[in-house]
Amino acid sequence: MMQPPAIGLGIRLTLLAEGPDVSAAQVIADHHIGTHADLDDLRRAVQDAPVVTFDHEHVPPEHLRTLVQEGHDCRPGPDALIHAQDKLVMRRRLTDLGVPCPRWAPVAEPADVEAFGFPAIVKTARGGYDGKGVWKVESAADLDEPFGAPGALLVEELVPFRRELSAQVARSATGEIVDYPVVESRQVDGVCFEVIAPAPNLDPALEARARAIARTIAEELDVVGMLAVELFETDDDRILVNELAMRPHNTGHWSIDGAVTSQFENHLRAVMGLPLGATTPRQPWSVMVNILGGAVEDLAAQREVALAAQPDVKVHLYGKAVKPGRKVGHVTAVGEDLEDVLRRARHSAALLTDGDLA
Amino acid sequence: MMQPPAIGLGIRLTLLAEGPDVSAAQVIADHHIGTHADLDDLRRAVQDAPVVTFDHEHVPPEHLRTLVQEGHDCRPGPDALIHAQDKLVMRRRLTDLGVPCPRWAPVAEPADVEAFGFPAIVKTARGGYDGKGVWKVESAADLDEPFGAPGALLVEELVPFRRELSAQVARSATGEIVDYPVVESRQVDGVCFEVIAPAPNLDPALEARARAIARTIAEELDVVGMLAVELFETDDDRILVNELAMRPHNTGHWSIDGAVTSQFENHLRAVMGLPLGATTPRQPWSVMVNILGGAVEDLAAQREVALAAQPDVKVHLYGKAVKPGRKVGHVTAVGEDLEDVLRRARHSAALLTDGDLA
Repeated sequence: MMQPPAIGLGIRLTLLAEGPDVSAAQVIADHHIGTHADLDDLRRAVQDAPVVTFDHEHVPPEHLRTLVQEGHDCRPGPDALIHAQDKLVMRRRLTDLGVPCPRWAPVAEPADVEAFGFPAIVKTARGGYDGKGVWKVESAADLDEPFGAPGALLVEELVPFRRELSAQVARSATGEIVDYPVVESRQVDGVCFEVIAPAPNLDPALEARARAIARTIAEELDVVGMLAVELFETDDDRILVNELAMRPHNTGHWSIDGAVTSQFENHLRAVMGLPLGATTPRQPWSVMVNILGGAVEDLAAQREVALAAQPDVKVHLYGKAVKPGRKVGHVTAVGEDLEDVLRRARHSAALLTDGDLA
Repeated sequence: MMQPPAIGLGIRLTLLAEGPDVSAAQVIADHHIGTHADLDDLRRAVQDAPVVTFDHEHVPPEHLRTLVQEGHDCRPGPDALIHAQDKLVMRRRLTDLGVPCPRWAPVAEPADVEAFGFPAIVKTARGGYDGKGVWKVESAADLDEPFGAPGALLVEELVPFRRELSAQVARSATGEIVDYPVVESRQVDGVCFEVIAPAPNLDPALEARARAIARTIAEELDVVGMLAVELFETDDDRILVNELAMRPHNTGHWSIDGAVTSQFENHLRAVMGLPLGATTPRQPWSVMVNILGGAVEDLAAQREVALAAQPDVKVHLYGKAVKPGRKVGHVTAVGEDLEDVLRRARHSAALLTDGDLA
């Protein structure tokens, strides 16, 4: 999804792809086949690039530091990115900055969690995503699985929250910052299925707080590119930081069709040190619904049904094989009436997921 | 510009490119190097493609017919496309259909033009574009050049027109048709420099006539894909057909940022036989201004100035070397106030063309 704005801006992308058929390699002519875990593969991919950026946070921090030492301009840099890679580092830093987080603690053994108190959330510091590496624990019996997993762990309070929000900012290499409207992100089992932009009925004071948190993090951590701050809006009207992502993020996909400048375009502008684009919504409401692998196996054929049913819903397929629950695309509807926009987006996504009407 | 919607729709493009650095080859991974004038190059490019389409009309008609005989599905087909390739064929057919055209005649020798009457427009039947192959002739002395050019010629009356319009429709392989708002196309020396969508102050009766003409041509000529009908709005309130293009057209570039579904997306949908997308404008006004090669040589550097000056104008660069007058990109502004939209689009384009304020 970075390629369309790159085309418009006249920026040529070079890709490190895990195989010739992964989504991005299907549309980026200049790609190297290799893995982000291998330093030599990374070196080959970045050798002629003036700027290096990422569409996930799984490149090992030590490799990033080596690339920087070898003169490559990684944006965001490893000292920023580590906060999206390691939840312990992130919690320590945000706590030092006074950014509101759930109560948390590092844990080395099950007794540490018992001392923290049940129920709670145990997470691996590194490598988790989309609900993986996250366990809800209610008693000592629930601790075998997390403590059987590799790597450091932390524990966090189970926050009673009203809903999840996401605050996105783009920060350019020049220091310029723009922010997007704060959105509501609806999740099941840690997987986002629907985003409403802007978050409906959000108290303006809470919105301002969410935007301020995202700007503070971007500036203090020296983020370059897009930053998504996943937030809890608690039952008692607080805004707490859940997770960080330093890249275009699923909760910002609405901006492709719903904002004057998409998160992908602003990520590119930011890492290239270009002036950032307007984040103004094109319509009062945008709804993005993920297409999670479901009963529909032949997405290309079903696409026809969805396009016919909703001629003004934008369908984005990622060129991935359908597997149960896998994100294989998304749809976005925009408009003036939220109920109507929700209905159209959900209808289109249901046709592409289960093949029948939602 | 076909690649961004192809990415979203999950359609993989294979390209026949004249060289590895042409615009489209920069962004379409799967490309063959060769020329559209060579049948074997064409055969190599289309061999695995379920559908063959075009971004210009220069593929020789006899090669297209050979590809069709060999089982390839060309959309539009050669019998439709010939009307965008050969102005004599086009004029004959439109006249037969009762579609209003300027008065015209085939001419074999200068005396035929003199019999038609001066002043007039002499055109080559094939191969002209952007003002090339078109001569305004005022007397017999002006006829040396056209009659020195190769190929058949025709003559047309010099139409006293108020302005030029363009009517675009998309027609799917299934027969479904959608049309875009009729736009005003502003030209200098046969080269479009600015498009306003919709055409300001267009008499609704003339707009309806323009749309009807475009639909009639699409249906009667069995066009599949986008059809652009360039029109004259005459001083005496008639709508006359100037030229046809059967592909996404410069006068439709506004739709990338200004319509729910762009002409490129609807071209793809149409040739793939998919349902067509809504052509609704996103804002009351869209203005597209071409970036014609000018004083600015380093477009990539100047892009920064333009993006900073107009954060909500969308800039599209084509990855082409700058040559005087060459179309190397375009910009689009949208909004509710036409004067403001015009000002912003022209400012951005001026910065990218001449480097200073318009």
